[in-house]
Amino acid sequence: MKTAPIPYIAEAGFSVTRHGKPSGPPESWIQLASNESSFAASPAAMEAVRRAIGEIHRYPEPSSSDLRNAIAARYDLPAEQIICGNGSEAVIETIYRCYARPGDEVVFSRYSFIQFRIFAERVGATAVLVDERDYTPDIDALLAAVTAKTKIVLLANPNNPTGTWLPRSEVRRLRDNLRPDIVLVLDAAYAEYAESEDFTAGHELVAGTENVIVTRTFSKAFGLAGLRVGWAHGPLSMIRVLGRMKQIGNVNRLAQTAAIAALGDLAFVNDVVRTTSASRRRCAEALEELGFPSLPSQGNFLCTRFPDAAAVHAFLLGQGIVVRPIEDYGLGDFLRITIGSDGEMDRLIAALKQYRDEKG
Amino acid sequence: MKTAPIPYIAEAGFSVTRHGKPSGPPESWIQLASNESSFAASPAAMEAVRRAIGEIHRYPEPSSSDLRNAIAARYDLPAEQIICGNGSEAVIETIYRCYARPGDEVVFSRYSFIQFRIFAERVGATAVLVDERDYTPDIDALLAAVTAKTKIVLLANPNNPTGTWLPRSEVRRLRDNLRPDIVLVLDAAYAEYAESEDFTAGHELVAGTENVIVTRTFSKAFGLAGLRVGWAHGPLSMIRVLGRMKQIGNVNRLAQTAAIAALGDLAFVNDVVRTTSASRRRCAEALEELGFPSLPSQGNFLCTRFPDAAAVHAFLLGQGIVVRPIEDYGLGDFLRITIGSDGEMDRLIAALKQYRDEKG
Repeated sequence: MKTAPIPYIAEAGFSVTRHGKPSGPPESWIQLASNESSFAASPAAMEAVRRAIGEIHRYPEPSSSDLRNAIAARYDLPAEQIICGNGSEAVIETIYRCYARPGDEVVFSRYSFIQFRIFAERVGATAVLVDERDYTPDIDALLAAVTAKTKIVLLANPNNPTGTWLPRSEVRRLRDNLRPDIVLVLDAAYAEYAESEDFTAGHELVAGTENVIVTRTFSKAFGLAGLRVGWAHGPLSMIRVLGRMKQIGNVNRLAQTAAIAALGDLAFVNDVVRTTSASRRRCAEALEELGFPSLPSQGNFLCTRFPDAAAVHAFLLGQGIVVRPIEDYGLGDFLRITIGSDGEMDRLIAALKQYRDEKG
Repeated sequence: MKTAPIPYIAEAGFSVTRHGKPSGPPESWIQLASNESSFAASPAAMEAVRRAIGEIHRYPEPSSSDLRNAIAARYDLPAEQIICGNGSEAVIETIYRCYARPGDEVVFSRYSFIQFRIFAERVGATAVLVDERDYTPDIDALLAAVTAKTKIVLLANPNNPTGTWLPRSEVRRLRDNLRPDIVLVLDAAYAEYAESEDFTAGHELVAGTENVIVTRTFSKAFGLAGLRVGWAHGPLSMIRVLGRMKQIGNVNRLAQTAAIAALGDLAFVNDVVRTTSASRRRCAEALEELGFPSLPSQGNFLCTRFPDAAAVHAFLLGQGIVVRPIEDYGLGDFLRITIGSDGEMDRLIAALKQYRDEKG
């Protein structure tokens, strides 16, 4: 006889690993592990939050109407084709919940965002991990992995944790060759940072389809990771379905307010992106010079190869510098390093120089 | 041939209905439709939010550790048996996702929180609505509705939208007579307002079980509806399972901060509860005198019967007073009226008196 409820989700499985504690006083730590913006939020967003505090006892507007209108105006998209969520992780998970169940397959590149695997496990679908070429998604291999059971294909561009990206022509080729009954998710969380001329977040690929959806976030360049706001732009038919899975108060009141204000201060975001790019280039060159090469990145981070990544991670922790081991992604030879301010990068580079001189 | 993705959740079905717009300038409206606290948040919570604004670019702590510790200390519960979510709606939905799938049954009282039905639809399980006795859950009927397919039974106490409640002995009887492989959710969203001597939120019923879980929220008496914080206390085995379904950044940074501060200012909450109770009693008596009787309520609201509820709702809207029609709950003869300040209740009572004199 059963004596306890049997859950559908196993206790074992993927999880976000913990990576140890840095040395030294907390105020001296450098947080380069979570791909947050090191450049804070727009002062306009912070001021908007401050002004809204008196209303925190009131539920948020359930459909994030004002925010969707602000996004629509900024990106020249129809507001009714936008849905907002508690971070883009919530938006992407909602897509899984609407379109994948046990017996179904979800296809994505091997080194994709780890949540892509976790979401599949949660809905009971099978995650199909497709090998990459040079740590970059391989469109032919992705298309070849599609079966009659495939319900969702995901492509993150630029990709996390590698930082690599695909040109517009390849993303389009994926879209054009995918069966129209399969949902194609284009995860553009890092799109703001992508400077490559041939990059696309993918919004123009939604038009004329019933199956292509682009997800975005305010957690990166917009500096609102702590507030949790993500969104998706897709066909009206899909947005309506996702809306039926949306919790009533999914995006909190201060997050909606802050995101609207952040969209009104694009000069700030542009400056964040410029500063991050310059810092990323400088850091990549310095690390390369030290003998630690990085994958080409269009994100606010570097995916850097080390002869002994675990030892480097431990050494950096000892210096109060927190970066992200990504052995849970199957990339045990790499560390993912968020790009911070010049001062933060100076400290990182100096620490890695010291490591190389002492142990390398 | 299929030409579009086929979702697992239908476009048709239950939804939170829209109820029309009040007349007059927005600043004159009285919001009595959503069971928010009309008494704002604790000044300490607001101040805590203000101080934390500078960190909104950093992700929230994924497991809400400090908040769970604060809850554990306040309610004398083990912190490891607590999980926090983006409102208690998210916590309850996560329970559904972990324990119910297509073919399973979820059992609850007919006039329960409407989300109980929506969550069932979303996971593809069958909602079994059990008839009540005097608008109050009937434990014998609930137990009789259990079948081999039952995976979850829910009981909201006090219940929304009726405001009615069951004594401790009845809740215990439900627990004691339920198969231990069935999850029992005790939704105590309105527990702070319950003054009845024989009331229990149910935390003491968790001990010694593997299947009983209590859900709570900061959206009501604590006045943090806009920030989204709910939590559950259950057996370690269940809390671990729920944790595997939790999004990484599920409770935003400012919500965690505010909830901790709110727990530190219980004098404020106690005052909110006292004021609400006095206002509820006065309002219920005044409405009764006008010929509009309410169900006995232990929540921050009244469920009041009107000869023509739709007409009363429209009339109140015309006066800038927003209450909640609950025909979507199958209670078309009632309106749910959130208890506000004395001034707000005076305006409501005056409006209803005018209605009765003019049209009643």
